[in-house]
Amino acid sequence: MNITMLGTGNAMVTECYNTCFVLEDGDKHLLVDGGGGNTLLRQLKQAGFDWKDMREIFVTHKHVDHIMGVVWMIRMICQNMKQGQYDGEATIYGHEEVIRILKEMAEMLYPAKQTCFIGDRLHLVVVNDGEERELMGHKTTFFDIQSTKAKQYGFCMDMGNGGKLTCCGDEPYNECEKKYAENSKWLLHEAFCLYDQADVFHPYEKHHSTAKDASELAEQLGVQNLILYHTEDKNIVRRKELYTEEGKKYFSGNLYVPEDLEKIEL
Amino acid sequence: MNITMLGTGNAMVTECYNTCFVLEDGDKHLLVDGGGGNTLLRQLKQAGFDWKDMREIFVTHKHVDHIMGVVWMIRMICQNMKQGQYDGEATIYGHEEVIRILKEMAEMLYPAKQTCFIGDRLHLVVVNDGEERELMGHKTTFFDIQSTKAKQYGFCMDMGNGGKLTCCGDEPYNECEKKYAENSKWLLHEAFCLYDQADVFHPYEKHHSTAKDASELAEQLGVQNLILYHTEDKNIVRRKELYTEEGKKYFSGNLYVPEDLEKIEL
Ligand SMILES: [Zn+2]
Ligand SMILES: [Zn+2]
Repeated sequence: MNITMLGTGNAMVTECYNTCFVLEDGDKHLLVDGGGGNTLLRQLKQAGFDWKDMREIFVTHKHVDHIMGVVWMIRMICQNMKQGQYDGEATIYGHEEVIRILKEMAEMLYPAKQTCFIGDRLHLVVVNDGEERELMGHKTTFFDIQSTKAKQYGFCMDMGNGGKLTCCGDEPYNECEKKYAENSKWLLHEAFCLYDQADVFHPYEKHHSTAKDASELAEQLGVQNLILYHTEDKNIVRRKELYTEEGKKYFSGNLYVPEDLEKIEL
Repeated sequence: MNITMLGTGNAMVTECYNTCFVLEDGDKHLLVDGGGGNTLLRQLKQAGFDWKDMREIFVTHKHVDHIMGVVWMIRMICQNMKQGQYDGEATIYGHEEVIRILKEMAEMLYPAKQTCFIGDRLHLVVVNDGEERELMGHKTTFFDIQSTKAKQYGFCMDMGNGGKLTCCGDEPYNECEKKYAENSKWLLHEAFCLYDQADVFHPYEKHHSTAKDASELAEQLGVQNLILYHTEDKNIVRRKELYTEEGKKYFSGNLYVPEDLEKIEL
């Protein structure tokens, strides 16, 4: 299994794409979020993926830096189904608000001859807090991260052999996620900026973490591998070096601060 | 007056951004369309613009390669108004369908504490076929291009000294546009591909033109300067050269096939 980061930035970035990624296991793919628009399609292409292989998609929440690329995926899928250039089915998972908004946007934006495939061969599936589904053949549990901004879900995937991969979405860890995040083999967590630059970027006012905070948390939770994402982009050339340097002081496992398009073996 | 192309591609491109541009006259700016997402913000930055200077925006139609970037502009404007970091007002013009969809999307996606600025300091203004408005201090007439796909408007701007700039949107010229397009000093028209490659790209099935078609048309209409945009991106490195070579055989005026971020003095 591996993960390819299509984007690694927060909502406001212009020097990288917004946080979204592909999990890959053999010929199966799970796309998580879509970033802020059709640059998703460029990132998929640049990473060597065929967008048609993204048969399972999960959307964490409705913020435009996560949902807009998925609105484009709906267009691509439905249009190609209509043109006879897309075989089989695809499924988009999300909580009730996400699925409702995706449907409404598709109906507003796309012609009926395309949206007729929604519910037919493109399935928009509501998942609930604590619900288990099989994604890429792995047992996956969705959970509400209890955001106070917009309702948001993370997920915990059983990787096999007792390992689990947990995605906490784009907000700091909340105690309610403990049973999922604790002892994860892989933890995906946001880090808005360096703790050293908290006075510049004000992460706490924005309800975000620093590299230090996320690393301390991962240490406490007994995590083996930590991936930091959803960062600012003001010094993206040195981001990997500086965030890694800061985080390593507080986390004894393997710390990853990926660039856009970076692939990591899980 | 000048124009900066933020994007020059059709809906499906991944090697450039979707067609959208900024008209600039002194300190005044008109943004026309937004492309497919937040790459609009990157393109504005790369072109040297401050997104806050885009105080007038016109949206031609609801297709996602045109409207999504404008949904992002609404976010940026309303969020910054809320934070006290945006002075004054801004206006988005569009026909009834565009304005209705923009409002509905904003209300679905953004919090009430941001959308409350819509109608207050961010004006979403419906324009009708043949309606005149003053944009950037220039008399501008909006017109229905009579699209059979999605309702779409172009516009014709009085540049002063008898010159006019006419934008035909992203579909081939229709006779109903004659009084606007004829004798334009500047004509903006789509060219999906080369006529030489019509058998590869099937422009006519997609209701699009070739570089040859648009150039012949501009010649017939007595146009002085022709800008071609909304192209495919399969050979973008040689696009300018090849499209210009083909078009020049049929158009005796000045032909422009801009790259993304190219600025042209009008
Ligand atoms: Zn986000
Ligand atoms: Zn278009």
